[in-house]
Amino acid sequence: MPYIKLEEHLPGITGLLEYRKDTAQPIRELTQLLLRGPSTLTEAERELIATVVSHGNECIFCTTAHAETVNELLSESNTVQQVLDDLESADISEKMKALLVIAKNTQQSGKSVVASHIERAKQAGSTDLEIHDTVLIAALFCLYNRYVDGLGTSLPKDKSYFKSLAGRLATQGYHRNPAGYDHLKLTPNQP
Amino acid sequence: MPYIKLEEHLPGITGLLEYRKDTAQPIRELTQLLLRGPSTLTEAERELIATVVSHGNECIFCTTAHAETVNELLSESNTVQQVLDDLESADISEKMKALLVIAKNTQQSGKSVVASHIERAKQAGSTDLEIHDTVLIAALFCLYNRYVDGLGTSLPKDKSYFKSLAGRLATQGYHRNPAGYDHLKLTPNQP
Repeated sequence: MPYIKLEEHLPGITGLLEYRKDTAQPIRELTQLLLRGPSTLTEAERELIATVVSHGNECIFCTTAHAETVNELLSESNTVQQVLDDLESADISEKMKALLVIAKNTQQSGKSVVASHIERAKQAGSTDLEIHDTVLIAALFCLYNRYVDGLGTSLPKDKSYFKSLAGRLATQGYHRNPAGYDHLKLTPNQP
Repeated sequence: MPYIKLEEHLPGITGLLEYRKDTAQPIRELTQLLLRGPSTLTEAERELIATVVSHGNECIFCTTAHAETVNELLSESNTVQQVLDDLESADISEKMKALLVIAKNTQQSGKSVVASHIERAKQAGSTDLEIHDTVLIAALFCLYNRYVDGLGTSLPKDKSYFKSLAGRLATQGYHRNPAGYDHLKLTPNQP
């Protein structure tokens, strides 16, 4: 049971974004810019940063949603699994490993990011903007994870909910659907 | 030295907000809504949440800036000092104590907020919206603190900088000044 009164059919972040729509709007905009705006990082790479940070914060809703979104964007589920199991041996570029190390440290604390992490990322070809965006995406998911868990939001009853949500995030991004989350309404409430 | 190339005369968050103005805009809007928008919590109470969270994250730039803003709004500096020294004995309302306990736990992790923290806040008269806003302000400053420290931003050379910044935040809020931070430019660079 969430700690405040939210619409029952809206689990995780979705009920919060409908609870206070005025604050939801800039949160959505920031997420859309960072995860779907023009970037030299792919959408899957940026979603992977969101996944790793959410996993570090043990936020089940966000980890599952963004892991499924990476899987959807890549049409495979090995990459997320490898990265969460053992980043250094995962089949991703050295640049992404270095950026994910920065993201994981940002998740712990801004102060955990040290010059050697940045140096590794620059050696692997990361630009200033890629490093900036990695830190800001990691920081944004520290916001999301605390928002979702700090208010005790619920998980969907049916795990297939996350596939629907990921399908939407992969194809439509983070703008508010004109119908809110109503197109997802039936999934979590049906057995 | 910051980890990425920022304008040298802009310390802490100010250089980051000028570095990527498109992402800065929704961050500013969210902050303005939460800290200056209509609320049953005073501006000083909301700035106190920002201060306590930034202090918990050991972010010197944000802690100093928001502590000075509370001082400016209250025209005294005892409240911040008492709250940071020992929350439970501070001369603030029981409701604010309960909300600051929620904020401090949100800073640690969303999962650290438990039903008894919420129960205490409700017993002390907090509304759902006040609890929501407390968690979201705390989460937002977990973003800010990581953004500021994760990119290794610099502190102003002159501590009087924070009084100028706090004066601006207290009277003008979080919208971008048409001149950026240029009106604060001289303070940090002068002895």
